[in-house]
Amino acid sequence: MANISYQHLNPPVRILLGPGPSNVHPRVQQAMAAPMVGHLDPYFVKIMDDTVELLRYLFRTQNKLTFPISGTGSAGMEASFCNFLEPGDTVVIGVNGVFGERMVDNAARCGAEVIPVTAEWGNIVAPEAIESALKSRKKVKMLALVHAETSTGVMQPLAEASKLAKQYGALFMVDTVTSLAGQEVAVDDWGIDICYSGTQKCISCPPGLAPFTVNQKALDIMQARKAKGPSWYLDLGLLSAYWGTGRTYHHTAPVSMIYALHEALALIYEEGLEARIKRHQKNAAALTAGLEAMGMVMHAQAAYRLNSLNSVRIPAGADDVRVRQKLLNEYNVEIGGGLGPLKGKIWRIGLMGESSSESNVLFLLYALEKILVAERCDMELGAGVNAAITVFKKS
Amino acid sequence: MANISYQHLNPPVRILLGPGPSNVHPRVQQAMAAPMVGHLDPYFVKIMDDTVELLRYLFRTQNKLTFPISGTGSAGMEASFCNFLEPGDTVVIGVNGVFGERMVDNAARCGAEVIPVTAEWGNIVAPEAIESALKSRKKVKMLALVHAETSTGVMQPLAEASKLAKQYGALFMVDTVTSLAGQEVAVDDWGIDICYSGTQKCISCPPGLAPFTVNQKALDIMQARKAKGPSWYLDLGLLSAYWGTGRTYHHTAPVSMIYALHEALALIYEEGLEARIKRHQKNAAALTAGLEAMGMVMHAQAAYRLNSLNSVRIPAGADDVRVRQKLLNEYNVEIGGGLGPLKGKIWRIGLMGESSSESNVLFLLYALEKILVAERCDMELGAGVNAAITVFKKS
Repeated sequence: MANISYQHLNPPVRILLGPGPSNVHPRVQQAMAAPMVGHLDPYFVKIMDDTVELLRYLFRTQNKLTFPISGTGSAGMEASFCNFLEPGDTVVIGVNGVFGERMVDNAARCGAEVIPVTAEWGNIVAPEAIESALKSRKKVKMLALVHAETSTGVMQPLAEASKLAKQYGALFMVDTVTSLAGQEVAVDDWGIDICYSGTQKCISCPPGLAPFTVNQKALDIMQARKAKGPSWYLDLGLLSAYWGTGRTYHHTAPVSMIYALHEALALIYEEGLEARIKRHQKNAAALTAGLEAMGMVMHAQAAYRLNSLNSVRIPAGADDVRVRQKLLNEYNVEIGGGLGPLKGKIWRIGLMGESSSESNVLFLLYALEKILVAERCDMELGAGVNAAITVFKKS
Repeated sequence: MANISYQHLNPPVRILLGPGPSNVHPRVQQAMAAPMVGHLDPYFVKIMDDTVELLRYLFRTQNKLTFPISGTGSAGMEASFCNFLEPGDTVVIGVNGVFGERMVDNAARCGAEVIPVTAEWGNIVAPEAIESALKSRKKVKMLALVHAETSTGVMQPLAEASKLAKQYGALFMVDTVTSLAGQEVAVDDWGIDICYSGTQKCISCPPGLAPFTVNQKALDIMQARKAKGPSWYLDLGLLSAYWGTGRTYHHTAPVSMIYALHEALALIYEEGLEARIKRHQKNAAALTAGLEAMGMVMHAQAAYRLNSLNSVRIPAGADDVRVRQKLLNEYNVEIGGGLGPLKGKIWRIGLMGESSSESNVLFLLYALEKILVAERCDMELGAGVNAAITVFKKS
């Protein structure tokens, strides 16, 4: 066997202002390292119960089946389609970014007919277009929308879409990966039937779990399906027997990740959901003011911008990759680049969970200004930071 | 919003001698708590490269596509079926326990015709029966076997089955969840085409990832499939673009879990695979000697017993649940109960990874003796511990 050279694990300490993962609170880091117990240990069962209760608080739901799926947000997306859609079903999907496109791929793999409702990347999907799609077929089984499109920074309004789903008898499924715990999400009040998220965004837990909730109406529809779903791992019938009262063994739960989620959810509860959302609003407003004072242009449609993910157009004269590398190498700050048609055109600045702080906003603006001035962009040093401070002073 | 009461995270320190998870080395715990970085950070990309290299060492393979799937061992099982089997395909599956049964469920969901080859729970699946199944159809696409049946403690011999798979032109797929890093596993030498494992057994990393490897022959067969597979999350085409040289974004990798796996694999490499397997052998031999000296009867077929998972019949007079509860509550020791037809009939004692130690063997035998004597089982205090010590002295 050949010699293998590998490094001693010693990650740099980054300020994570990209599209996720976000920074993790020391209490959550400690939870990851807590002593391992068996996945059927009475102690762990209590931790599972707590986690479910705290997740219900976060999703603002009374749904019995509320739990973290043992995979990343994308596994949550897959579970939300593959348990409900069968060959022959029709699904309407809003597509205005990477995650809408991913939804289309997922739904098509279930054998469903997909009616995409497209919009430009950075704009919302228009409710009128959603209604046209819903009434274009005799029966649409599901309407699926991305609440927070991480690839563009746009926030999809859900109130009218929810009404339309009910009017046309479709299940209403929503991706809240980048909004949950940073933007308002109210599963029961908003009439969302199926909802999933990810741990590594505004929840500020390491990536690896997909918080998920589903109501009884959707479960009844699921139970009426003709054949078993394609996935054993994500089968909600089997998973509800494990996460429900029976605790029937399904797969070995990722114990440490659930410890960490438990702790991250406790931190959210202690801060209070309302205060946390206000914090995200304030920091996004200050960042936006700063970027605009630097002469930069926000990308997402005005009035529909996420606080958790701020997309801004790359100013003329700046080299996308070089700027991001300088931020990372000289300031230990990560921001995200654009995806698909927005590659090289926007930066994506995440202010999620622990990463959404006044100090991070100010430091990023300071560093970005210094780098962009060196790139010979037309801007005045200090304008961005001062504009952000003005916003902070008002709040 | 109602008040939620949840506990402060403070898990008990257990000795984990059940079917997994096993205990975790302090270095691995520390890795779980290491600073978060972005999943596209150059630092993390290097950690991914190391992890792949160390996984190849562990699987004893040169396979290019070798990486941890972002889910538990069961996600590894699902990926191993759903990427390769299409409706109309035929698969032969050995079924002599829970995990063989799970394989049948998985394969059937892919629309494949399943030919199960059954054996009593605790016995191996006979090679002659495998051959009969392989030749019962014109074309069998895959032969799937569980190397280490965690529900019974039996180790399936693979040499003859591998030859048969090649003879009949079937892909050879093997579940090594409970054997990898504790028993000999040699993917390339043994002609295994597709192989998966779990992190929480002999690798002694928290549960949450499924180490996976596949050779080019199987990938070529996969690429010839008629339609996309049912799973986007587990699509090996997309995953190989991420874990390969391109690093094309797929899903957000579970960063901390991969840190931990990196560290657990480094520990395995530092110990040496051969020494590690010998350690597992020695401790299992001592445990078996001890249990037999206590008058107990091992359950799995002689000559085919796992070192990582030791199944023993519950002695007359002992109450299954009460004994296990006493072990847990009075000694902080977890062992596993039986599953399915073996429920209430066997205990499953894991000696996996960090949990496979002389001290754990001796302490378990001591505690079990004390409890069983109190249960009025017919045994002599000290016999088990002394028999184990005799084995240790010889080695």
